[in-house]
Amino acid sequence: MKLSDTILPVKGFRVAGVACGLKSDNLLDFALVVSDVPCVTAGVFTTNIVKAAPVLLGMERLQHHSDAIRAVAINTGCANAATGEQGLQNAHATAKAVGEKLGVDEHQVLVMSTGVIGTQLPMGKIHRGIDLAVAKLGDDWATTAKAIMTTDTAHKMASVTVETDKGSYTITGIAKGAGMIAPNMATMLSVIVTDAKLAVGQAQMALQQANEATFNCITVDGDMSTNDTVLLLANGESGVDISNSRDLNEFVGILTSLCENLAKNIARDGEGATKLVQIHITNAPDKLTARKIADAIGTSPLVKTAFYGGDANWGRIMAAAGRAGVPFEPNKAVLSIEKIGGKALILFANGTGTNYDESVAKDIFAQSEFVVTLNLNMGRGYASVWTCDMSHDYISINSHYRS
Amino acid sequence: MKLSDTILPVKGFRVAGVACGLKSDNLLDFALVVSDVPCVTAGVFTTNIVKAAPVLLGMERLQHHSDAIRAVAINTGCANAATGEQGLQNAHATAKAVGEKLGVDEHQVLVMSTGVIGTQLPMGKIHRGIDLAVAKLGDDWATTAKAIMTTDTAHKMASVTVETDKGSYTITGIAKGAGMIAPNMATMLSVIVTDAKLAVGQAQMALQQANEATFNCITVDGDMSTNDTVLLLANGESGVDISNSRDLNEFVGILTSLCENLAKNIARDGEGATKLVQIHITNAPDKLTARKIADAIGTSPLVKTAFYGGDANWGRIMAAAGRAGVPFEPNKAVLSIEKIGGKALILFANGTGTNYDESVAKDIFAQSEFVVTLNLNMGRGYASVWTCDMSHDYISINSHYRS
Repeated sequence: MKLSDTILPVKGFRVAGVACGLKSDNLLDFALVVSDVPCVTAGVFTTNIVKAAPVLLGMERLQHHSDAIRAVAINTGCANAATGEQGLQNAHATAKAVGEKLGVDEHQVLVMSTGVIGTQLPMGKIHRGIDLAVAKLGDDWATTAKAIMTTDTAHKMASVTVETDKGSYTITGIAKGAGMIAPNMATMLSVIVTDAKLAVGQAQMALQQANEATFNCITVDGDMSTNDTVLLLANGESGVDISNSRDLNEFVGILTSLCENLAKNIARDGEGATKLVQIHITNAPDKLTARKIADAIGTSPLVKTAFYGGDANWGRIMAAAGRAGVPFEPNKAVLSIEKIGGKALILFANGTGTNYDESVAKDIFAQSEFVVTLNLNMGRGYASVWTCDMSHDYISINSHYRS
Repeated sequence: MKLSDTILPVKGFRVAGVACGLKSDNLLDFALVVSDVPCVTAGVFTTNIVKAAPVLLGMERLQHHSDAIRAVAINTGCANAATGEQGLQNAHATAKAVGEKLGVDEHQVLVMSTGVIGTQLPMGKIHRGIDLAVAKLGDDWATTAKAIMTTDTAHKMASVTVETDKGSYTITGIAKGAGMIAPNMATMLSVIVTDAKLAVGQAQMALQQANEATFNCITVDGDMSTNDTVLLLANGESGVDISNSRDLNEFVGILTSLCENLAKNIARDGEGATKLVQIHITNAPDKLTARKIADAIGTSPLVKTAFYGGDANWGRIMAAAGRAGVPFEPNKAVLSIEKIGGKALILFANGTGTNYDESVAKDIFAQSEFVVTLNLNMGRGYASVWTCDMSHDYISINSHYRS
C-alpha cells in the first residue's frame, strides 16, 4: 500500500478553509468539512479530565447521531476549553449556525476547536467564518489543512485510493498538532473522510485500531491537550461496501498507514523540532512495560535536548528507562541506534558502555531521522513511539504563546 | 527554628574540597567529609532501576556498617553509572584508597559520584583528589560545597545549632543538584552531618521523614538520576543524646527545615531556572491524588515555559492537572496564584476563567518566587512541590552537556 503523492478529493465531500479574523494578519483560521449525505462517523477523544466544550459536544453527539453526521467545523485561535456553560453554549451555537447554513439538522454537525485555553469563542468571527467557508466549499484540501494549523509550520494531509473487486474508494485525512502532544491518547485534531461504505461499529473499531498504533504513539512534550479529537467520516458515496471482513481488514491496515503518515508528520513538526526519532523497546516482559519505558524515554527533556545537540549521551536514555516505574534488568539490556535503513550501532550492553566509535554515533545523531532501540532481552513485549528533539525554539514558542 | 546565617563547623567532622583534574580549568571537583569517630549513618537512594556503582556500594554498606561510617568521598565529572563490573571495582577502590589514607577500614567509607553517565572513573585523578583532600581537611564547608557542584550556579549549604537542656548540637548539610531532578525520590547528592547522638534506626527514620517532605518534593525536569543520594552522619561528639522521643521529634523538625532550605535552593538553581514556583494542591480526595496532580503541573514543559515567559496561561495548568491520571471535578476546582506573603488572585472557578485583572496576574508571574494553588474542593488530601521555570538556558545546558 502506497499513499498517493497528491491529495485526492473524496466523492460526496466538500471542504473549505478561510480567514475570519480569529488569527491576525488575515491568516487562515476556520475550516469546514461537509458531506452531501449522512456519514457513518467514528471518533476518539482526549482522555484529559478537563475536556473542551467541542469534545463534550462531540462525545455526546456520536452516542446518538453517529450514522448521520453531515459536517465538521474547525476553528483555530481559541480552544473553547475551561470555558464553562458559556463555552458549551457557544459550541452548540456554532453547530447550529453551520446546520442552518447547510440546511441540515444541528445534531448532524460536529465542531472542533484549537488554540488558547480559557477564552470564549468570539462568536461574531465564527459566524463570519461559517458564511465564508460555506460559500467556498469545494475540493481545496490543502487550504483546508492549512486553516486548522496553530503552531504547526507545515500542513499535514494524506490520501490513498484503494482498488477492490467491487470498485475503488478513497481515504483522505488532514491533521494538525505541534505542541501539547503526548502518547497514549488521541493527540491532536484530525479529520479523515472516505467514500467507502461500512457500519458504525466497524468504523469505530477501525479508527480505534489505527489510532492506537499511530496517533497514540507520538510525543512532543508529554503534555496532553484538552481538545484532542480524531474523526472518521464515511459517506458510502463510492458505492463500495467494505463491511465484509476481508475488505474491512484491508481498510484497517490502510487507514493505519494513513494515520501513521499524519502522526509522523506531527512528531516531525513538533514545536521547535529539528529531528524525528523512533524509540523501539523490544523483548520486554510485556507490552505495557515496553510502552512505559518508551514513553519515559520519548518524553524525557534530558534525552530530547541531547537529541537536539546531536550528542549521543546514551546514559540519559538508560537513566530515563530506569525511572519508568517498571522493572527490567539493566545487565541484560542492549541499547543501539541506527539511521533509517542503516546498520545498528550498539552503545550499551552487559551493564556498561561499549567501545563504540563516537564519530559513527555522532553521525547517526546528526540525521534528521533515526531510530533508538532498547532490547530488554526478557520476553516478547514490544512498543514503539515517535518523538522529536527539544530545542531553543520550543521554549521561544511556548514562553509567550498567548502574547 | 531559624537556620544559621553562617555555616557552622560540626564537632569531630573535618571536610575538604579540592581540584584534581576531573573538571577542566582547575575547577573544584572532589570533596571529602570525615569524622574523627564512627558515625551512625542513614541514607536514602535513587529508586531508578539503573543505579550507579556508588549507590549500589552505599546501599550495601549501610546494611552492615551503618553504625561505623567514618568518611564520604564525592567526585564530580563522572557519575560512575552504567559502568558495569569495572565501575563497581572503581567505587570500591576509591573507598579503599580513602580508608588507607585516613587509617580506617574501607567498609567505613562511602562514595558518591555525579557527572556524565557511562564513562569510567579516571582513577589516577581520583587518587590525586584523595591525597589533596586528606591534606586539606578542616572546616572549609563552603569550598567543600563548591567541590560537589556540576551545572549548579551556586553552592548549597545550610547550618543550625540546636539548644537543648543537655547542651547544644549542630547540624550542617551540603547539597548539589540542578538537572535530572524529579519528585518522589532522593533527588540529588547531599551530605548532612551532626554531632548529636542518636541510634541508627532513629537516624534512618529522621532522614526519611525529612526527605519525604523536602528533597522528594522538588522537580526541575522530571528526570530521575541514577545517582541520587542523601546521607546523614551523626557522630555524637557534642555529647548531646537526642534518642528520647521529645528531643528526637525536635531533631526531625529541624532536620526537615534544613533539608527544605537545601531543596528549595536546588529548585531555585534548576538548570536555566529564573523562578521558583511552589505548587499547592489542596482539598484533594486523598494525598496520592494531590501529589499526582502537583507532579503533573510541576513537570509540565508547557506550564514551565509559561512560567518562564511570565505568561499567566492558566489553561495549561488546568490541562496538566487534567492529564495527571487521577479523577477530579473541574467544575469544583479553584485555581489561584499569589506572591510570597501576598493576596491570592483567583484565575479559574466554576469551570471557567474568572474576570481577573491580567496586569495583577502578570505582576505575580513576574516575581522570582510565587505560589500556585489548585483547590479541588473534594476532600482533605494535600500535596506541595517546588518547581522552576524552563528557559532557553535549560536547552543550552543540556544539548551539549558532554561536549
